Amino acid sequence: MSRLVMKFGGTSVADIDHIRNVARHVKREVDAGHEIAVVVSAMAGTTNRLIEWCGEAAALHDAREYDAIVASGEQVSAGLLAIVLQDLGVVARSWQGWQLPILTSNAHGAARILDINGAEIVRRFKERKEVAVITGFQGIHKETGRITTLGRGGSDTSAVAVAGAIMADRCDIYTDVDGVYTSDPRVVPKARRLEKIAFEEMLEFASLGAKVLQVRSVELGMVHKVRIFVRSSFDKPEDIDPYANQPPGTLICGEEDIVEQHVVTGIAFSKDEAQISIRQVADKPGVAAAIFVPLAESSINVDMIVQNVSADGKTTDLTFTVPSADYQRAMEAIGKAKAAIGYQRLDGATDVAKISVIGIGMRSHAGVAAEAFRALASRNINIRAITTSEIKFSVLIDAAYTELAVRTLHSLYGLDKA
Amino acid sequence: MSRLVMKFGGTSVADIDHIRNVARHVKREVDAGHEIAVVVSAMAGTTNRLIEWCGEAAALHDAREYDAIVASGEQVSAGLLAIVLQDLGVVARSWQGWQLPILTSNAHGAARILDINGAEIVRRFKERKEVAVITGFQGIHKETGRITTLGRGGSDTSAVAVAGAIMADRCDIYTDVDGVYTSDPRVVPKARRLEKIAFEEMLEFASLGAKVLQVRSVELGMVHKVRIFVRSSFDKPEDIDPYANQPPGTLICGEEDIVEQHVVTGIAFSKDEAQISIRQVADKPGVAAAIFVPLAESSINVDMIVQNVSADGKTTDLTFTVPSADYQRAMEAIGKAKAAIGYQRLDGATDVAKISVIGIGMRSHAGVAAEAFRALASRNINIRAITTSEIKFSVLIDAAYTELAVRTLHSLYGLDKA
Repeated sequence: MSRLVMKFGGTSVADIDHIRNVARHVKREVDAGHEIAVVVSAMAGTTNRLIEWCGEAAALHDAREYDAIVASGEQVSAGLLAIVLQDLGVVARSWQGWQLPILTSNAHGAARILDINGAEIVRRFKERKEVAVITGFQGIHKETGRITTLGRGGSDTSAVAVAGAIMADRCDIYTDVDGVYTSDPRVVPKARRLEKIAFEEMLEFASLGAKVLQVRSVELGMVHKVRIFVRSSFDKPEDIDPYANQPPGTLICGEEDIVEQHVVTGIAFSKDEAQISIRQVADKPGVAAAIFVPLAESSINVDMIVQNVSADGKTTDLTFTVPSADYQRAMEAIGKAKAAIGYQRLDGATDVAKISVIGIGMRSHAGVAAEAFRALASRNINIRAITTSEIKFSVLIDAAYTELAVRTLHSLYGLDKA
Repeated sequence: MSRLVMKFGGTSVADIDHIRNVARHVKREVDAGHEIAVVVSAMAGTTNRLIEWCGEAAALHDAREYDAIVASGEQVSAGLLAIVLQDLGVVARSWQGWQLPILTSNAHGAARILDINGAEIVRRFKERKEVAVITGFQGIHKETGRITTLGRGGSDTSAVAVAGAIMADRCDIYTDVDGVYTSDPRVVPKARRLEKIAFEEMLEFASLGAKVLQVRSVELGMVHKVRIFVRSSFDKPEDIDPYANQPPGTLICGEEDIVEQHVVTGIAFSKDEAQISIRQVADKPGVAAAIFVPLAESSINVDMIVQNVSADGKTTDLTFTVPSADYQRAMEAIGKAKAAIGYQRLDGATDVAKISVIGIGMRSHAGVAAEAFRALASRNINIRAITTSEIKFSVLIDAAYTELAVRTLHSLYGLDKA
């Protein structure tokens, strides 16, 4: 007997038929004797419609009212799932964030979960074998008593937080893919599904554009040691063995749980990047601040930053990347600050891509990046910039070479499936 | 300065444009210095869609889950109205039933309001001139902490109950008609809008098919002495004088507030009736119970009951009416109980209508009904059955004569407009 959290996203509960499918997944686990808490998103399309209405009501609107409005979506899907479960003979009830409660910070629209009271749910597991169907994405602020939401994709975070609160053995994220792959299968046909991936690696994957899971939910899983299992909601509920040691999917877990460690786990990439190079910047204290403070004030996230050691001791070139959506605003901000920064020329490019090689094994293996540079050079792919961290390195290249580069590196590190 | 509750139904908040119109009504009263609590229904169509989903999920569904799902509609409209009000510069916030809280009984789907805590709203009237936008139709059960709903039209009841709790000077019900008329203007072109009507009279109107207001809200208004003002949400907000002693509409109030008392206030009618006559029932104790207990057990509401004093001391005829939707079931129930009741023949008719003449003045005026009988006879309208109460009498006639009868009585009692 295990205690599981099962999370289903908006497309999995898009209509009553889909909800019935979800219910059969839940019933399978209940019948296997597991204690189950389900976390659901709003029915697909609902949240967007509610957000549109808020925008129509007023361009700038009170985030507290926005939260109260948008949180209604999960209230509906949770209630409907409870009804369908009961109809299948499963004891179930819905819980809204404020009912448990799920206490959050006061940052409406992007609240952080502070505490979850899971005692009543656990009591009902024991006494009545009752399935708890919990609204994802939302909570309540303790002092104001107002409903908060966690921001886009917040249901993943809710699920992992609930799993932590009730000390679940695993948090199953049912989604439209059947796991985490060594790279995007649409680009790399030879990409393999990973059996397991370490939290740290998944964090890099998630923040580098593999849209399987919210970054925050992975962080939370890592901190609270909640094993997260990514699996497909399209698998037929009846085809899955609830007693299997590991059903089809990818387990995100601690390093210590991964016996067979690879040096490189996967290759991520993002075309949603733009490069900005500032030429002949004065090489003196305070210049970096003069550049990046105006960007931060415009809420522009800077990603890669490359600054070379000055050759002449007087000026240097500085390159960084921003999301392509912010490119124009970033160029303008740097242009405005020209006098304060003191530079000769400003170059930019939006036809660039970032390729990242990720693997915990890199920590203990030297020369991993060097192999990549050689392989890319042999394909005549020019590297514009390089950054490295403990468990990954990224290169910035011309966007036209993205697919070639990703496939080359995928083969290079032995990730292609047999 | 007055304290007002303003209630808007589903068609008044059907979309953002309509909500903007509502907000202008609210702003007008705020600008006039009044303290305002608004009670809203769900956007038109929302509640029906949610109810449909519940039905799709399971034919028989948990009323507690149904309530949690259906209550989400008002959550959205209240939040949107708060946003639009803020956009107009009005200080406002939304309140859900559980936030105030509005405590109700545990009868999910048809809960009764037990208590409303209006202290925080009143504090904010004083401190911040804040408008409270409250979700109608719903509350919370104190012990279970689960959301409850009041049943169809419950928002009227919510509004009157809130008005009672905060000791409002008036509860304005904005609806798609501009008041209560002496009869249905579609049937009686000469019907006049009433300036005032007593609670007791309105109760008869409401329960006799004038669909302006929920019966329960009128009862509540009578008990808590909340003056209810029925007015049109289609009036242009800017055309109304918020300082006027009485804007266009009908005030439902205590008798003592009605200076110029008419004998007859209005004529109501209902075609939604069916007549059942049981012939030659044994005239002995226990027979009425034998007839009406089976009907009650089938949840069939019996309305008019007419039993004549037996002529021969042995048998009598008994006639009663039921809603036409329940006619078949009622006939079957009586048929089944034939042995227990002991009767000769069962007659029924669904092409009947009930015409009711209502007026508090009847209490002190004799002969009011007699005039009606004479007038109907002069039109060759046969009366099938008669019932009377202190402030009204009803006649059952052939449905074909409904319009003629209503117009005849409307003229007879001097209700036609000049």
